[in-house]
Amino acid sequence: MRLLSIGLLIGLVTTPALAERKEPIQLRDVGSFHIGGRLLEITGQPVKEIVFTPGGVPAKVDPNGTYQVEQMYVQYYLQQQPKGKLPLLMWHGGGLTAATYETKPDGKPGWFNYFLRKGWDIYISDAVERGRSGWTPTFKGESLVLPLGDPWERFRVGPIGSWNADKAKRVTFPGAQFPIESYEQFMKQGVPRWTTTDDAIVAAYVELIDKVCPCIVLVHSQSGSFGFKALEARPNKIKALVAVEPTLGGDKNKVASVKGTPVLMVFGDNAKDHPRWSKIRQGGVDYAGVLKAAGGSVDIVDLPDIGIKGNSHMMMMDKNSDQIADVIQKWLVRKGLSN
Amino acid sequence: MRLLSIGLLIGLVTTPALAERKEPIQLRDVGSFHIGGRLLEITGQPVKEIVFTPGGVPAKVDPNGTYQVEQMYVQYYLQQQPKGKLPLLMWHGGGLTAATYETKPDGKPGWFNYFLRKGWDIYISDAVERGRSGWTPTFKGESLVLPLGDPWERFRVGPIGSWNADKAKRVTFPGAQFPIESYEQFMKQGVPRWTTTDDAIVAAYVELIDKVCPCIVLVHSQSGSFGFKALEARPNKIKALVAVEPTLGGDKNKVASVKGTPVLMVFGDNAKDHPRWSKIRQGGVDYAGVLKAAGGSVDIVDLPDIGIKGNSHMMMMDKNSDQIADVIQKWLVRKGLSN
Repeated sequence: MRLLSIGLLIGLVTTPALAERKEPIQLRDVGSFHIGGRLLEITGQPVKEIVFTPGGVPAKVDPNGTYQVEQMYVQYYLQQQPKGKLPLLMWHGGGLTAATYETKPDGKPGWFNYFLRKGWDIYISDAVERGRSGWTPTFKGESLVLPLGDPWERFRVGPIGSWNADKAKRVTFPGAQFPIESYEQFMKQGVPRWTTTDDAIVAAYVELIDKVCPCIVLVHSQSGSFGFKALEARPNKIKALVAVEPTLGGDKNKVASVKGTPVLMVFGDNAKDHPRWSKIRQGGVDYAGVLKAAGGSVDIVDLPDIGIKGNSHMMMMDKNSDQIADVIQKWLVRKGLSN
Repeated sequence: MRLLSIGLLIGLVTTPALAERKEPIQLRDVGSFHIGGRLLEITGQPVKEIVFTPGGVPAKVDPNGTYQVEQMYVQYYLQQQPKGKLPLLMWHGGGLTAATYETKPDGKPGWFNYFLRKGWDIYISDAVERGRSGWTPTFKGESLVLPLGDPWERFRVGPIGSWNADKAKRVTFPGAQFPIESYEQFMKQGVPRWTTTDDAIVAAYVELIDKVCPCIVLVHSQSGSFGFKALEARPNKIKALVAVEPTLGGDKNKVASVKGTPVLMVFGDNAKDHPRWSKIRQGGVDYAGVLKAAGGSVDIVDLPDIGIKGNSHMMMMDKNSDQIADVIQKWLVRKGLSN
């Protein structure tokens, strides 16, 4: 695949324009909707009498009937004067919600704010069975929620074995950019996930694309897989795909159909050498190679190679998150997708 | 308690000022945070190996450890030029999320948009264990999610026995304002609830109050109980409480401490005669009487009595939702809380 030239790489590394933060955000509209899902029939369950509020009046609840399941919640923020030529869709990773991109755990503006200030119409969503999308106790398999220490190592704040319940004894990678004083605050963003709902998640994303695209899709981690599946389902509707540490690339047998959509992959620090992330990254690089050989356009940015060091898997929450957003923004501008 | 005068009642009934909808929404900031919660220790569970994405690289997950639980998600929208003198906190009802107040199921602007356009700084949240607040599989008791027909009758779209799976055979109350063609869309907003988490919910609301108040709190249905509990915990921080069909009032033994905060209760159509809602409404009216006798200020608006008819329990989604928002807005202006 094509690597970015050195001159371009230097151009991508800038400091955030703090001055513009003082301008008001001017929106023509803000709102939300649920999209997708299906009806599910439940039968043969006993009627219950439930006191919803202690001291309140009991209500009979019949659990039998038809349920709305597998819908997706989407919030939209539409600019008074958009600079982006298409809407930007922001899809979060596993065990999380759209909060991933909003205000960072340290209270500073995240990528949602960055791209909003850059003038993009934004559609930011909670994947099926996460957050405001809701869930029903009908999904197969156990739900999973992560304990405090797990992401510290799995999301590369520190190396394997570096977690410690005692804050003073936690070890990070050298120069780590994750705001470790806000690590517990980050963990408040976690929501349960299932490993059995991928098809429902992709179905809802495709419905969203049919409703609001052509567009640009920004994915992270687990939603990398969903982004490529959505691209394969609607190659003409996604005009650029930004994949931030995707856990999987697309289907190598389908590259011919998606080669018209430029792809940017971004990896943080310590991804190349990490026992788990090196495999994940290599999967993305291998897919990119096949896509490129078929005539596709893929740029892979390993952040340390362009001088941006210390970034975790949650780079949108790292202290230098604006610097990485700048890399993405400039790539989108170069693709002719924003003024 | 004091009833509103006829002249005032007429003044409260107006049509929404559609013209102002064309002005841009100007915000100095938008963002989110999680607040509250506690750490929970889990021990003695087996380590699992999980493939998070089909075809992906397996990861070992140790469920033992410390979990962040019972936190609350809050989104904030801060005006460039606020007209409200204090922030407005919007708390949703049971089995739902902040989506309650956002764009209505019929796609039209809801109360969130109404109050945003009126110039209020808004903090809108998902209660503990709902929506983006996340949940952990540690809550006692079963979670509950409602089937399609249940709220049709329980939220007074139609009378008891009026639900039918066949859309053509569903019966509403005469002149019902709920957009019944969007009923299934409304049901996509539902999320599971527990009946065991009230204390955790109130604790997080009180933490929110300590962070962002003095303020005005708007509650609905289940959060009526939470609003009064929060008022009793922080009587000097809540400067007005708007309780829309609260399922419970406050503690009659604590009225002396909360009498300095004006309260508005709003009930929709068919509440007085409904076998369940008549009891709920009477509970609110009885509490209001005790509060008033102690020197408190309570206004109770039964919407049909001021000529606003056909409203369901979900009046913020009804076709005439702006008309009811006008009643609330004018009450807040009369209390000196907005320019």
